[in-house]
Amino acid sequence: MISAQSVWEDLVKIRERSPLVHNITNFVVMNNTANALLAIGASPVMAHAGEEVEEIAGACGALVVNIGTLNPQWVGAMEKAMLKAREGGVPIVLDPVGAGATSYRLDTVRGLLAAAVPQIIRGNASEISALVSAGTTMKGVDSSLSSDSACGAAKTLSAMHGCVVSLSGETDYIVQGGRLECVRNGHPLMPRVTGLGCTASALSAAFAAVNGEAFAAAAHAMAVMGIAGEIAAREAKGPGSFQVHFLDALYRLREEDIGSLLRAGREAA
Amino acid sequence: MISAQSVWEDLVKIRERSPLVHNITNFVVMNNTANALLAIGASPVMAHAGEEVEEIAGACGALVVNIGTLNPQWVGAMEKAMLKAREGGVPIVLDPVGAGATSYRLDTVRGLLAAAVPQIIRGNASEISALVSAGTTMKGVDSSLSSDSACGAAKTLSAMHGCVVSLSGETDYIVQGGRLECVRNGHPLMPRVTGLGCTASALSAAFAAVNGEAFAAAAHAMAVMGIAGEIAAREAKGPGSFQVHFLDALYRLREEDIGSLLRAGREAA
Amino acid sequence: MISAQSVWEDLVKIRERSPLVHNITNFVVMNNTANALLAIGASPVMAHAGEEVEEIAGACGALVVNIGTLNPQWVGAMEKAMLKAREGGVPIVLDPVGAGATSYRLDTVRGLLAAAVPQIIRGNASEISALVSAGTTMKGVDSSLSSDSACGAAKTLSAMHGCVVSLSGETDYIVQGGRLECVRNGHPLMPRVTGLGCTASALSAAFAAVNGEAFAAAAHAMAVMGIAGEIAAREAKGPGSFQVHFLDALYRLREEDIGSLLRAGREAA
Repeated sequence: MISAQSVWEDLVKIRERSPLVHNITNFVVMNNTANALLAIGASPVMAHAGEEVEEIAGACGALVVNIGTLNPQWVGAMEKAMLKAREGGVPIVLDPVGAGATSYRLDTVRGLLAAAVPQIIRGNASEISALVSAGTTMKGVDSSLSSDSACGAAKTLSAMHGCVVSLSGETDYIVQGGRLECVRNGHPLMPRVTGLGCTASALSAAFAAVNGEAFAAAAHAMAVMGIAGEIAAREAKGPGSFQVHFLDALYRLREEDIGSLLRAGREAA
Repeated sequence: MISAQSVWEDLVKIRERSPLVHNITNFVVMNNTANALLAIGASPVMAHAGEEVEEIAGACGALVVNIGTLNPQWVGAMEKAMLKAREGGVPIVLDPVGAGATSYRLDTVRGLLAAAVPQIIRGNASEISALVSAGTTMKGVDSSLSSDSACGAAKTLSAMHGCVVSLSGETDYIVQGGRLECVRNGHPLMPRVTGLGCTASALSAAFAAVNGEAFAAAAHAMAVMGIAGEIAAREAKGPGSFQVHFLDALYRLREEDIGSLLRAGREAA
Repeated sequence: MISAQSVWEDLVKIRERSPLVHNITNFVVMNNTANALLAIGASPVMAHAGEEVEEIAGACGALVVNIGTLNPQWVGAMEKAMLKAREGGVPIVLDPVGAGATSYRLDTVRGLLAAAVPQIIRGNASEISALVSAGTTMKGVDSSLSSDSACGAAKTLSAMHGCVVSLSGETDYIVQGGRLECVRNGHPLMPRVTGLGCTASALSAAFAAVNGEAFAAAAHAMAVMGIAGEIAAREAKGPGSFQVHFLDALYRLREEDIGSLLRAGREAA
């Protein structure tokens, strides 16, 4: 089970080691993702050319593959990078953005999963559900389901691929094999800011770069996301100021913030 | 004629229905555009791959096509999406960013207009003028003309294509057939922030998704842009803080804000 | 030697003339770069299609080529634009982002330098070193070297290509031929925000557009970056609020701010 102590220890490691996180991610969130990684102390690099992804994936601490704005050239580079990361023992986080929105996205995620299994799949309830039952479609990239209702799908997906599934929502569910961890931090403003799910995936990679236990890394990342979100919301007047305070909160996060705010355990609230 | 009441009613519908807005837009503004749509209550999706644009355009509430950073692959996807939207009765907003800056942009916009007429063309004075008289060139994407001087071009463009033309500037002119609406809200800091024109196009699409009358939708969007801009400017110390307050203002906008600030009518000030 | 007076005079020229700055730059920073250029008074345009880069590069006041997220199509357009700019006497700033991170980046920069020499190469210590000695690799895009240690490499690179090299870091070194200028402004939060190096390159282009002396333009840009950074840091609580205040500071920068804060000279501190 995660604890304030275990979250804090990983955060300190990120700040000390500044792991290189390779992101092949969507155009909408590249800037936010890079800034969130810098704010927690990691070193982000964005690179998607087939000519260079293997060299970077082979040298980084963790790889994030996010299909938010995909096309065939990018998908080819994603596969190359994942194979190289797998080969070198570099942890991979896969973010199936909008997987249920088009058959192209669904097919792409299935192809990537067939090529190389990631350590962590992080998605919202509609995305995780779409990966398990083909009939579950979604409109766009926002979830229309509660995370509670998709917890079963997360378990199924984890069993299918033998990896951690990190299902985010009002309660975050981190599952693997028979293990389940719930994180109940966060704030209603968070889904009103684009790309905070993508940021969660990037932070999961930063934690996976310093913690070989992917289950713990995924849970620690969701805890830090939620806690920083709660701190940011205290002074936010809307989604604009929330984003500013969120980066500041990630940068300033202290052990006592985690100790006083963490709400995690093996069961939802 | 638009009224505070009609603007507010559409805004409430956006917040209640959270329409899916499909954006094929430029790299510079994707993040802002998505955040502005989320802030007013819509659900943005960015997708540009030829493999998936039709599926999304067919399922969305409105489509935005913005040529700010175009290339041939993207232009092909734009045309596909516009044809699909047209077929399904999905309203389209076309933003001819920098149309007068290069012949490639001008040719692209003409090609898109020949393929499928949008409900709304929204641009600045130089862009609208360039679409009407080929001799009007512009340097880059910022307008060198006042919107007052381009009002005639907007009428001509509207007559040429039988669609609404939303011409933004110090005064916004919304024209269609013999109809004219002026919105005189806004603030001088707005052109100092990149992509607020693109945001105006995206918000026009959100309004068009809930209001079948494209003329009213375009005018309501410009009113909300300008009013949120005035509120944001009250506390802004420059274009950085302006952007933060602008998203907060879109999110918090109340009926009384619109009632007290709206300056619209059939004539410029 | 640069002075508060010379920095201020160029800044006034940018505000008065609003030079068009053509950016072929990476996806991560496009928005920031455009906003920073608007904040100091320039007019940014982002365009990367082979179909239009020559038309824009031929009409602009300065060209920025930044390889932060490159691929073969973009590199082809960069070369086209650089050749056109060279032909028309338009100053070019080249930013070799992550040059030492992959052989693809290094080869690309060398190819661009062989095609057309820029007026200014601006990079961090690892990037400048990698361009001089092939054995210097870097992890990702952040520098692992101090700028002090790379000053020799900057001189060598400048001599190799006969252009200004602007080496940024705790102390910025601007070198050309036997000339050296040090700028010691800035703040430790700056490397915690993504793309401020890219912003420095874009501002260098804005200054080069109004000052035919590339050495002075490069130094003035670094001075403005560092001074705005110090002003922003006064009120910043972390990298989120820093970014907001930074744009505001660029927009509001006064002659007396430069006079009281500039720390520049021919030697490091």
